[in-house]
Amino acid sequence: MTDERIFNFNAGPSALPLKVLQEIQGSFLNFAGSGMSITEISHRSGYFDDVINDAVDRAKRLLKLDDRFHVLFLQGGASLQFAMMPMNFLKEDDSADYVNTGTWSTKAIKEVQILNKNYRVAASSEDKDFSYIPKDIKFSADAAYVHLTSNNTIKGTQYHQFPDTEGVPILCDMSSDIFSRPLDMDKFGMIYAGAQKNLGPSGTCMVIIRRDMLDRVDKTLPSMLKYTTYSSKNSMYNTPPCFGIYTIDLVLKWIEEEMGGLEEMETYNIKKADILYDFIDSNTFYRTTAEKYSRSLMNVTFRCPTADLEKKFIITATEKGLGGLKGHRSVGGCRASIYNAATMEGVNALVEFMDVFAKENS
Amino acid sequence: MTDERIFNFNAGPSALPLKVLQEIQGSFLNFAGSGMSITEISHRSGYFDDVINDAVDRAKRLLKLDDRFHVLFLQGGASLQFAMMPMNFLKEDDSADYVNTGTWSTKAIKEVQILNKNYRVAASSEDKDFSYIPKDIKFSADAAYVHLTSNNTIKGTQYHQFPDTEGVPILCDMSSDIFSRPLDMDKFGMIYAGAQKNLGPSGTCMVIIRRDMLDRVDKTLPSMLKYTTYSSKNSMYNTPPCFGIYTIDLVLKWIEEEMGGLEEMETYNIKKADILYDFIDSNTFYRTTAEKYSRSLMNVTFRCPTADLEKKFIITATEKGLGGLKGHRSVGGCRASIYNAATMEGVNALVEFMDVFAKENS
Repeated sequence: MTDERIFNFNAGPSALPLKVLQEIQGSFLNFAGSGMSITEISHRSGYFDDVINDAVDRAKRLLKLDDRFHVLFLQGGASLQFAMMPMNFLKEDDSADYVNTGTWSTKAIKEVQILNKNYRVAASSEDKDFSYIPKDIKFSADAAYVHLTSNNTIKGTQYHQFPDTEGVPILCDMSSDIFSRPLDMDKFGMIYAGAQKNLGPSGTCMVIIRRDMLDRVDKTLPSMLKYTTYSSKNSMYNTPPCFGIYTIDLVLKWIEEEMGGLEEMETYNIKKADILYDFIDSNTFYRTTAEKYSRSLMNVTFRCPTADLEKKFIITATEKGLGGLKGHRSVGGCRASIYNAATMEGVNALVEFMDVFAKENS
Repeated sequence: MTDERIFNFNAGPSALPLKVLQEIQGSFLNFAGSGMSITEISHRSGYFDDVINDAVDRAKRLLKLDDRFHVLFLQGGASLQFAMMPMNFLKEDDSADYVNTGTWSTKAIKEVQILNKNYRVAASSEDKDFSYIPKDIKFSADAAYVHLTSNNTIKGTQYHQFPDTEGVPILCDMSSDIFSRPLDMDKFGMIYAGAQKNLGPSGTCMVIIRRDMLDRVDKTLPSMLKYTTYSSKNSMYNTPPCFGIYTIDLVLKWIEEEMGGLEEMETYNIKKADILYDFIDSNTFYRTTAEKYSRSLMNVTFRCPTADLEKKFIITATEKGLGGLKGHRSVGGCRASIYNAATMEGVNALVEFMDVFAKENS
């Protein structure tokens, strides 16, 4: 129990900008002078139109999207997208290329298998326990799409540049690094992200999709499972997750107005990650687990000398107000998730703690 | 723009108990002494386990559910359920009975059609513009299920008792009246509800499902589209809509501890609806649109003498702090949605306004 806010290194749901939380709190009983909470407002009202349109506009400005792109809000997390992509885009004779860089890519592949659609694993880093991002991948020229996971939260790896697919559209799960850096959107047919890491609360999934992908959608699918239902109704075929979209709008506003845009956001994120990686590299007590060139700017995974020390590290850190440092239950170890909203102050506090802990336990 | 909270008669998203909103607001920056917002807490933490388990336990207590029932939290609203039901429960030779009582039933039927599954419309009130709930329906003895919509928000009709299906499980969309009254759950194989009317913010769909229905689930479906994925993982196969579940927990707590349970909730709801219907029945200016025996306790639909007067009614009411009284865009007219969280004070204020408005415009 603490009266103060901790430094939150959770992998997701994770830290949100304090300024955003304060704005939500301040207007929670009366949103925009409506006399209602944002949770009580009709999605068919002008109040909510302003919210969703502002979120879409900000996303478009930040990513410099041209008119080909639609910004949509779905539900069901990235996990529902794993099924919707093959359902929407893979006709009987089509095949898709998947790159397997860990748990989330593997889950995406599992759904193509369940659906009994054609696919090929174009590359995988499973041989080295997903500790790197594959390079020089040869994609099928006739693949309907290439699927990538831009950042692996569990192993702490990230694409620092996206492969050349020679015109085959990339569909990319960016749940853990969307809006953390500028993107060359020409490569992507679709990017998507569960909101709960860089964007807002869990329960909203942002999908940015290019027009030519919408043209390919299988029109015989159930309404809620085809992308065109969302694109033709500004994500409001049925009641959307209003509170999530509202929070995303505030987070995008924060990126745009407080941080200065995606170039500045990236600079800040690199600076935070450098502080952590530089410290770990200079220290013999800790070691990172990802190949250097594949290190994630979002999830810094590291180990202590023993599992017992890792346990002690996590408990002691929590006592000092540094939360969420436990590695994913599937791999153990430690992990500091430093998404957009993680502060430099928090990263500095973590390094300071790590230094003291190493000295006291060496 | 108002500094005060209005009386909110929105059809959904709609009013939430002020006490619930205040609790969310009060702990929004630091939930349960965690030093984090509820939107920043890991769904794999003890903090969130307590929330989701409390919500499940309260739902079970309120509805007096025995061990056969699972309480699940999904996403995608009732609209995704319209597709998931036939996908999960209708094998090739199966057929389901649907009762068509308006827009939402019609949408449920549309998804069975899209999926090319067998179904039969066992009864419909389309002949009288969905102004009543069909009686004495003859169901197929070998139907896989019977689908009903317990309350029609648009036409203002509601089942006051559920039909005898002679053992065929009823699957029921209760989006607009769940937890508004006690239920004899023996009749139901599954009930489901988008949260945004009686339960919490939009973006969470509560599904209460009986074990024998889970046994019937088509195991070849994508993970996020089969009910067993949710039942086997306490709704946490992937990140659930945490803020929605948290709010639902607080609303159920409010029903249980402040209102005294579902019997008392029903008494309160009847009292509110009676005040409104009695006033309208005693007044020649207004008229209701639903058959008397089918009148909804949740959505009181009514007309003024002319469309122009209805427009004036809605504008004037809004100016007086009575919001959300416009009928659904598909039917026009006026509608007062008085879900659980609507207060007697609000209903009395509405009747008072209606009385003055009628006198001034007769």
